[in-house]
Amino acid sequence: MANQAAIKQSSNTEGMVNGIHMETLMGTVNAIQKTPELGQCKFRARNTWLGGSRNCTSISGFYGAGQEFEHKQTFKLQADEPPILAGSDEGANPVEHLLNALAGCVTTSMVAHAAVRGINIEALECELEGDLDLRGFLGLADDVPKGFTEIRINFKVTSDADDLQTLKDLTRYSPVFNTLMQGVNVAIELQEK
Amino acid sequence: MANQAAIKQSSNTEGMVNGIHMETLMGTVNAIQKTPELGQCKFRARNTWLGGSRNCTSISGFYGAGQEFEHKQTFKLQADEPPILAGSDEGANPVEHLLNALAGCVTTSMVAHAAVRGINIEALECELEGDLDLRGFLGLADDVPKGFTEIRINFKVTSDADDLQTLKDLTRYSPVFNTLMQGVNVAIELQEK
Repeated sequence: MANQAAIKQSSNTEGMVNGIHMETLMGTVNAIQKTPELGQCKFRARNTWLGGSRNCTSISGFYGAGQEFEHKQTFKLQADEPPILAGSDEGANPVEHLLNALAGCVTTSMVAHAAVRGINIEALECELEGDLDLRGFLGLADDVPKGFTEIRINFKVTSDADDLQTLKDLTRYSPVFNTLMQGVNVAIELQEK
Repeated sequence: MANQAAIKQSSNTEGMVNGIHMETLMGTVNAIQKTPELGQCKFRARNTWLGGSRNCTSISGFYGAGQEFEHKQTFKLQADEPPILAGSDEGANPVEHLLNALAGCVTTSMVAHAAVRGINIEALECELEGDLDLRGFLGLADDVPKGFTEIRINFKVTSDADDLQTLKDLTRYSPVFNTLMQGVNVAIELQEK
């Protein structure tokens, strides 16, 4: 488990690879290796409908490494829809938020696993595009999938990796990538307020 | 297709159900019903790594209804990791962003489909929790899934629906819910910058 001293050092460049404080990361890795139950996490979010297509998610904490953690601030994320979907365009729409989740996760996974392997990344950026046919969501055609039918990510990287395939292979560790590729059961309950 | 006059009216309460301007929504529905190709959308995001576990997604536009649309502003979404994952906790982490995408999408889908059916929703909120074992992401156990193994959503609603099951059934239209339940292929390319 990371201790406070280790966390504070993370602003130094000493002991850092790709901007990641390796002692902190390896502390977590070693703790979970020793006590596998510490790997079990519960991530959480709370959402409030604001009328029409607008809603706001608050993210304040999570369970992991055998204890509850509070984020240092509550993160607020706004969703809306564009005018052609009768929204007021005050925020990214939910499927765009999904692309954001995927982009962030694959990026972080590649950077962290590269760090562990001593591969230095200088720059990394990506563009994503996902195909979605609105006839599914609108209920206009039962044979049209309601979700994304494919998502493409194109990365551009500057690194000292011997070959790009090694870096590309590290994307397989991404939790969001795996959740999307494998699918996951979403259990929905609804009760009166 | 929604015209400018219809969009401007959307701040009035006349012709609104659940805060959604029905003429605008039905205009889009009717246009896609008449010309199915208009349903094809490409949603997009661009992400830049900021060092360590930090990265930022920009969302500026999408393709839909046969044309390119620009959002009225570029939405910026920040991701980071908490200290135990060697991050600086400057933003929600990617798996929390995924919960946000799901929450927003199921909420909007329920509200819009309720509106079309004349069901008035007064209040709607939800809590989400997803199970994830870090041993997968960290590469510590090949038999542990790297993604979420289950996600639960608990909604609380105030509405004039005759029965809650009717409302709950509307969640099946959500694109993010369907993407997660069915899975989707994510094609990753990587090239030197």
